[in-house]
Amino acid sequence: MSSPLTDTRHVSIYDTTLREGSQCAGISFTLADKITLCMELDRLGVDYIEGGVAGGSPKDDSFYKEMQGKQLSHAKLVAFGPTVKPGLSPEDDRMIAALADAGTSFVTVFGKASEEQASEILGVTPEQNLEMISSTIKYLIGKSKTVFFDAEHYFDGYKASPDYSLSCLRAALDAGCSEIVLCDTNGGVLPFEIESIIKGTLSVIPELAGHFGIHVHNDSGTADYSTVEAVRLGADMAQVALNGWGERCGNANLFTVVPNLTLKLGFDTIPDLTVLYDLAHRAAETANTKMWEFSPFVGKYAFSHKAGVHIDAVRKSSSSYEHVDPSSIGNARKFMLSEQSGRAAVIAKTNAMLPRLGFSLDDAGVIVDKIKELELGGYQFEGADASFEMLVKDLLGIKKSWFRLNTYKVVVFDNDDPKSHAGDDKSGVTASAIVDVTVDNRREITADNGIGPVDALDKALRKALTSFYPSIANMYLVDYKVRVLESKLATESVVRVVIESSDGVRNWCTVGVSGDIIKASFDALVDSYTYMLDNSLGKPV
Amino acid sequence: MSSPLTDTRHVSIYDTTLREGSQCAGISFTLADKITLCMELDRLGVDYIEGGVAGGSPKDDSFYKEMQGKQLSHAKLVAFGPTVKPGLSPEDDRMIAALADAGTSFVTVFGKASEEQASEILGVTPEQNLEMISSTIKYLIGKSKTVFFDAEHYFDGYKASPDYSLSCLRAALDAGCSEIVLCDTNGGVLPFEIESIIKGTLSVIPELAGHFGIHVHNDSGTADYSTVEAVRLGADMAQVALNGWGERCGNANLFTVVPNLTLKLGFDTIPDLTVLYDLAHRAAETANTKMWEFSPFVGKYAFSHKAGVHIDAVRKSSSSYEHVDPSSIGNARKFMLSEQSGRAAVIAKTNAMLPRLGFSLDDAGVIVDKIKELELGGYQFEGADASFEMLVKDLLGIKKSWFRLNTYKVVVFDNDDPKSHAGDDKSGVTASAIVDVTVDNRREITADNGIGPVDALDKALRKALTSFYPSIANMYLVDYKVRVLESKLATESVVRVVIESSDGVRNWCTVGVSGDIIKASFDALVDSYTYMLDNSLGKPV
Repeated sequence: MSSPLTDTRHVSIYDTTLREGSQCAGISFTLADKITLCMELDRLGVDYIEGGVAGGSPKDDSFYKEMQGKQLSHAKLVAFGPTVKPGLSPEDDRMIAALADAGTSFVTVFGKASEEQASEILGVTPEQNLEMISSTIKYLIGKSKTVFFDAEHYFDGYKASPDYSLSCLRAALDAGCSEIVLCDTNGGVLPFEIESIIKGTLSVIPELAGHFGIHVHNDSGTADYSTVEAVRLGADMAQVALNGWGERCGNANLFTVVPNLTLKLGFDTIPDLTVLYDLAHRAAETANTKMWEFSPFVGKYAFSHKAGVHIDAVRKSSSSYEHVDPSSIGNARKFMLSEQSGRAAVIAKTNAMLPRLGFSLDDAGVIVDKIKELELGGYQFEGADASFEMLVKDLLGIKKSWFRLNTYKVVVFDNDDPKSHAGDDKSGVTASAIVDVTVDNRREITADNGIGPVDALDKALRKALTSFYPSIANMYLVDYKVRVLESKLATESVVRVVIESSDGVRNWCTVGVSGDIIKASFDALVDSYTYMLDNSLGKPV
Repeated sequence: MSSPLTDTRHVSIYDTTLREGSQCAGISFTLADKITLCMELDRLGVDYIEGGVAGGSPKDDSFYKEMQGKQLSHAKLVAFGPTVKPGLSPEDDRMIAALADAGTSFVTVFGKASEEQASEILGVTPEQNLEMISSTIKYLIGKSKTVFFDAEHYFDGYKASPDYSLSCLRAALDAGCSEIVLCDTNGGVLPFEIESIIKGTLSVIPELAGHFGIHVHNDSGTADYSTVEAVRLGADMAQVALNGWGERCGNANLFTVVPNLTLKLGFDTIPDLTVLYDLAHRAAETANTKMWEFSPFVGKYAFSHKAGVHIDAVRKSSSSYEHVDPSSIGNARKFMLSEQSGRAAVIAKTNAMLPRLGFSLDDAGVIVDKIKELELGGYQFEGADASFEMLVKDLLGIKKSWFRLNTYKVVVFDNDDPKSHAGDDKSGVTASAIVDVTVDNRREITADNGIGPVDALDKALRKALTSFYPSIANMYLVDYKVRVLESKLATESVVRVVIESSDGVRNWCTVGVSGDIIKASFDALVDSYTYMLDNSLGKPV
């Protein structure tokens, strides 16, 4: 077994988010998004940033133009484009001109490194393809560019016809290209094949040893490891994307590859990994896309422990269920409360909260007992930290009563054909709610309309509370989830509602459980308003 | 390079969804969910199904009890639990008793295969730990069980102290265990280490060659490949979970591991892989959790092509950007920039239904267009065949009008403290509904009470219809699920409700979508009653 942390070579991180990432389903970067992410990547300390396809779209061209007026502190911006079009010479090809004119010192040219692809997709002879690779690279070197060559379909090409694929690399090297990047373009090659093909390649072209790049797609679920494996075999450039964004199943994920290379194997990559968790989530916000909560290293749940035996063990020895220190990538350990998590988790979570509340309890037994009782009724505090805090305060007798809820009523009605089979009533009022609250001995009865009963209740309650507590106006609901707990009873089931709220700075979650979905929702809403008032209006009690 | 598709050994698929999957953040299976998934896994043809921790919770115990009355066609149900508690003998340990009494022929015992873990977590000497492994296995064999041993922390243990970890395996084998499962419990071991440790293990315990299991977590993003690698090195059992559900970043994913082993390497696993796409999505619905759309093989976007050059190339030669044929796992190619996506599927589904309805349509175009429009509004007919049939009949002009819904009203009220923090109102009435229907020019206005608005509506509608159609009394609701579609709008979100109904002989599912959860539920209810009347009272039109 090769021993870890002994290989301290520098590996260049080449980020392709702004090009491959924009080919990801659901992602559509604006020009401003691209500039934001480019500056983030530069601050992160990656070596190369691929900006988009030069000449490929007005947006990408505007991006390269805008970037000419900006200073990057460390990274080199790289323009990306194909080899010359069949039948043209480089000086007559507008895509090659766009590459040359992108204003970057570095360009990456992608070309076919597969005999079959050259003939079937480009419709050229093997010799023509070699000439296209060669002439494109030579032309761009003549324009004073440092040229990288993305050898598309290299691994599949090599499996079918190794000699030809090797000759493509040779053509690029002979033309003066500075870095050969081996690509698994359709993502189907498994790591043991990557290993064997890289070894075969190095035996024929030994000057690549320690000096080539790797670019892998995730169609087999193995992109991250294939990238790590290539680096172990001598690659000095890893092409990755933020959160693995890319075509189909995506590309190798910067947030997985960099920690594996750096924390586990000792390679030199970027200067500070503790910013990764934060960057992953901010980048997803910028891209307006969902962050996968189970992502290795930077997922919200990457260090969340749920089973009781796990929680117990992690408290005794973190390495039992944590492969790295969560803080090394800016993440944090979480204990999730659930029917699996047992007494130890509840005590740990309660004890962590008590000092902040000004308490120290040796025995959190009363809280544990109450949690167990509520869980039997269908409550789940996993992910509902705000409701958990309300509950603890209540049991400690320190829960402040910001308002008293006397009663509520909701009327739901339907005036048009309920079988119209379309979600076209999104803006139509279908419910009215009346809420009756008391604050400081002043009674307030308010009413409002909404789309559905929960929306109407939320609006009526908000109206009642805002007159007493104006800061309520800053609060809004982020997410609303419903889970039916005893589905055998169907519409008589117990439902659990989880509501995520925000004041624009931070988010919190609350939970409500009842046989009536409206009551469950309302309980979660009331907890959410109370938590908000506790933590931003008044001082924590 | 080892040549693919030459290794045709059978690899047992051991599914741990019902145990590890329930330890996944956001997942909380009901007893009914567990039974549904267990039967699905059996139909899929996996060899072993781990049902939960025996004695770990009332729910898991109920599951094992319920399963004693059910017949599995192929899979073996496996009970799961720890080695005997330090200081007890197996006959005095209630967890061991629960394992023995779970009603399964197979049990999996997990124990520490790491010197450090034994001392730090269990607080026992290395010798005591060996004795705990041995005595537990011997005791259960004495109870006529076939015993598997999950060697927890094996790889980390081996790295620190190989001799001791090997002695744990030896103790389990000597005690008579039938399969040793090597576990990367904290998910931190990279595949090249997995390889080197397995080779080291086999050199010392050669009788494991070709006969051991593998269980890996995904904290390094490499669980799927580590599992494949172990099988290549001789493992004959792969422990996986549906959609990779499990603690933290999850476990090896059945939907990635099985296609890689079967389609790429030729191993014998399950009989039919074309059901995988459908199962992945249905399982996520059952678990009421999000499907990761970029998952290899079975993700919605796994074969979605976005870049123009990719779409062009895939049309010329699918293998250029598709590593396997999407239909081999029941998925389908999609072009993101085209409106064509899904059209073929809808046409196929409609054409399959028409002969049964007595129709033959060459052009199902009008249906496709309507489906597209409804899907844009949030409808999804994947799991709602009854609503799909209603829709097709409606569009063909052959939908029988059993009743006309004029209007409905619901009042929801709350008389006691809504912050009582307990699901103790299960039997309390909280809503009243009024329903106004017309059948054969006779108008019927009925009312009823219920637990929550949907229950009240269901009862009122049932009362109205039963007077005309007494067979309605045989129908009951089996399941009720709610999914929020546009969570950013929170309580103003669009929700999709899926209702499963039964007449005691067969079950059917209907769907409703609206900004108002009550309207969505009611639409699904109305579809369900109509389908029931179509298919059991009247002759199919």
